Amino acid sequence: MMEERKLILYIACSLDGYIAGPNDDLSFLSIVEKEGEDYGYSDFIQSVDTIIMGRRTYDWVMKNAGYFPHSDKEVYIISKTLKSDEGNINFYSEKLPNLVRKLKGQKGKHIFCDGGAQIVHQLLQNQLIDEIILSVIPVLLGEGLPLFQSGSPKQRLELKQSQHFESGLVQLHYKIG
Amino acid sequence: MMEERKLILYIACSLDGYIAGPNDDLSFLSIVEKEGEDYGYSDFIQSVDTIIMGRRTYDWVMKNAGYFPHSDKEVYIISKTLKSDEGNINFYSEKLPNLVRKLKGQKGKHIFCDGGAQIVHQLLQNQLIDEIILSVIPVLLGEGLPLFQSGSPKQRLELKQSQHFESGLVQLHYKIG
Repeated sequence: MMEERKLILYIACSLDGYIAGPNDDLSFLSIVEKEGEDYGYSDFIQSVDTIIMGRRTYDWVMKNAGYFPHSDKEVYIISKTLKSDEGNINFYSEKLPNLVRKLKGQKGKHIFCDGGAQIVHQLLQNQLIDEIILSVIPVLLGEGLPLFQSGSPKQRLELKQSQHFESGLVQLHYKIG
Repeated sequence: MMEERKLILYIACSLDGYIAGPNDDLSFLSIVEKEGEDYGYSDFIQSVDTIIMGRRTYDWVMKNAGYFPHSDKEVYIISKTLKSDEGNINFYSEKLPNLVRKLKGQKGKHIFCDGGAQIVHQLLQNQLIDEIILSVIPVLLGEGLPLFQSGSPKQRLELKQSQHFESGLVQLHYKIG
């Protein structure tokens, strides 16, 4: 039997729950950077063929990396203002739950949600996330952009795995519901 | 050599960082209740001789348990309105950092901070917490009382231990700074 197509939130945050410091500062991630250690990312990325991401997160990647990786994936950038699609990059301005339900109804590998906070909030409000893989970085940022916003329904989690690494990163893997 | 006297935050929260649901609802803690499993609490409580707690948290305990446990500990309830001390319970209305610095300068076992959120925030703002033992309950509450409030300085953490349990609880133990 084929495994059900899942929407997986794979993301890193500080112990106090921030995915970025003030001014979208991601430098705290460097705390856990270590040659030869990708914390399971390459295995994970091979398990997905579709990526959903917020416009603000996309802009950050384009500004900081200069290009968008994952040329082999189907990418959906959730944006209120419609832009022309470019290659594998689709700009989507309609209702996010509709897109997710459509994608889940199609055959394929899993779907990777790469943030940001607004997209995560919309997905949680609609109970559309199936799994969370959260890498907790050993730092208290004190302020910044919170991963979880207030105002979504209560959901039970099932712990699938918890791993800790020499750098102090703890990766928590939950199934929702 | 004697071990330094530490202030330890020992607390539980949901994956989305709430220490209570709406209306101070703590029923989510029952998810991990299991006969014969105290998640290290009795060992921990023996390592402390002093407890600091916010007034609101104290009121919650008195209302729900009907009495205050820890008759063998020195207890400080941080309260803006001064009340008469009762037995081992001291009501403290002055500046919290002063109390903590005084206690740390005295000999004794460790000091247990049992919340709530306002006390944690004040302690973090003043960089007075030495260790955090955080039990992550496998649930997304969606709303409630956040453990971490915005507006404290960035602090590096050192992971001392990470343990996961059959119930799905993950206990993260960090040293601060």
